[in-house]
Amino acid sequence: VTALQVSKGDATRAAVLDRALNLASELGLEGLTIGVLAEKVGLSKSGLYAHFASKEQLQVDVLDTAKARFVDKVIQPALAQPRGLPRVVTLFERWLVWDDSELDGGCPWIAASSEYDDRPGPVRDVLVAHMEEILAFVARAASIAKDEGHFRADLDVEQFAYDYWGVVLAHHHYRRLLEAPTTRKRTETAIATLLERARA
Amino acid sequence: VTALQVSKGDATRAAVLDRALNLASELGLEGLTIGVLAEKVGLSKSGLYAHFASKEQLQVDVLDTAKARFVDKVIQPALAQPRGLPRVVTLFERWLVWDDSELDGGCPWIAASSEYDDRPGPVRDVLVAHMEEILAFVARAASIAKDEGHFRADLDVEQFAYDYWGVVLAHHHYRRLLEAPTTRKRTETAIATLLERARA
Repeated sequence: VTALQVSKGDATRAAVLDRALNLASELGLEGLTIGVLAEKVGLSKSGLYAHFASKEQLQVDVLDTAKARFVDKVIQPALAQPRGLPRVVTLFERWLVWDDSELDGGCPWIAASSEYDDRPGPVRDVLVAHMEEILAFVARAASIAKDEGHFRADLDVEQFAYDYWGVVLAHHHYRRLLEAPTTRKRTETAIATLLERARA
Repeated sequence: VTALQVSKGDATRAAVLDRALNLASELGLEGLTIGVLAEKVGLSKSGLYAHFASKEQLQVDVLDTAKARFVDKVIQPALAQPRGLPRVVTLFERWLVWDDSELDGGCPWIAASSEYDDRPGPVRDVLVAHMEEILAFVARAASIAKDEGHFRADLDVEQFAYDYWGVVLAHHHYRRLLEAPTTRKRTETAIATLLERARA
């Protein structure tokens, strides 16, 4: 195996994972089988098995692909902002863009959450680890906003992350399932209230 | 067909739907096939087809069964309370019991929401109709609390229902997926804050 072959294999794998992530956001991770994916990307099933040892490995790799993209599209732009409130505001703004338009089926973690809460195993473990990491990032951003004097000193940052997560879930649900035309307005009001209550 | 036979058929159907509802809360509505259900209730597939014309009909009937039980366990106890704040408080209390312990897999509508946001058809239509009805009940309860002078006159009751739905979703998610030991405390704090902000 030459370096060129490895790199070509990596590029194929990355392209397949991008397609797989989009499919998973629509069909759910459980709906993402090697067979369905092979058909969509125009590879044979055995060709795909060369890249992913099992359906489970494919699902874990899809979640890791989602995380890398979330870091790129949501976390990094927030980190590029000044510490404190500006960072929190950018985090929330980018997050809505992520749920609204990054993937055809919306946020892949939300889609996967109901599927895996009753399915123990490595996919669930990775999903939970990602969610905990993301929520910890929200709490840390709020904590920095306290240090900067933007948020009140007695703010419970874990509660802040919980409350924010409720807003993200309600947004996802109102927009994608109920298709409520008022969703954006409701979500902006909820986020403004959350920030207002946190202010110093 | 005698009246006794009809009534026996109805009793079987109701018992099957109860089991089906429990299964759907764990496996999701899509995971609930005639085959899986037949095995669980110890009937033949053809025996089940005598009760449900199709998988889709079974799914719709399961959602209607969930609704009847939700009305019995959550809505009716709330309506039995005095109009206004006491009714809202009981509604929220019973709702948490519903999500925590009524069914092994938690609230069946939340479980079904991610499954059906990308699947048009009669099951999605029924799911959306149920969700809209339930959220309208929350908004109406808040509206009555305004009339009674318990909630402030300028409260946006649709926003109140949206904010409350976010709390329910965050609760479901923290408890069932993240298995966070602080879930109950976080949820109670979020509900207390929601009610505090609504107070006259």
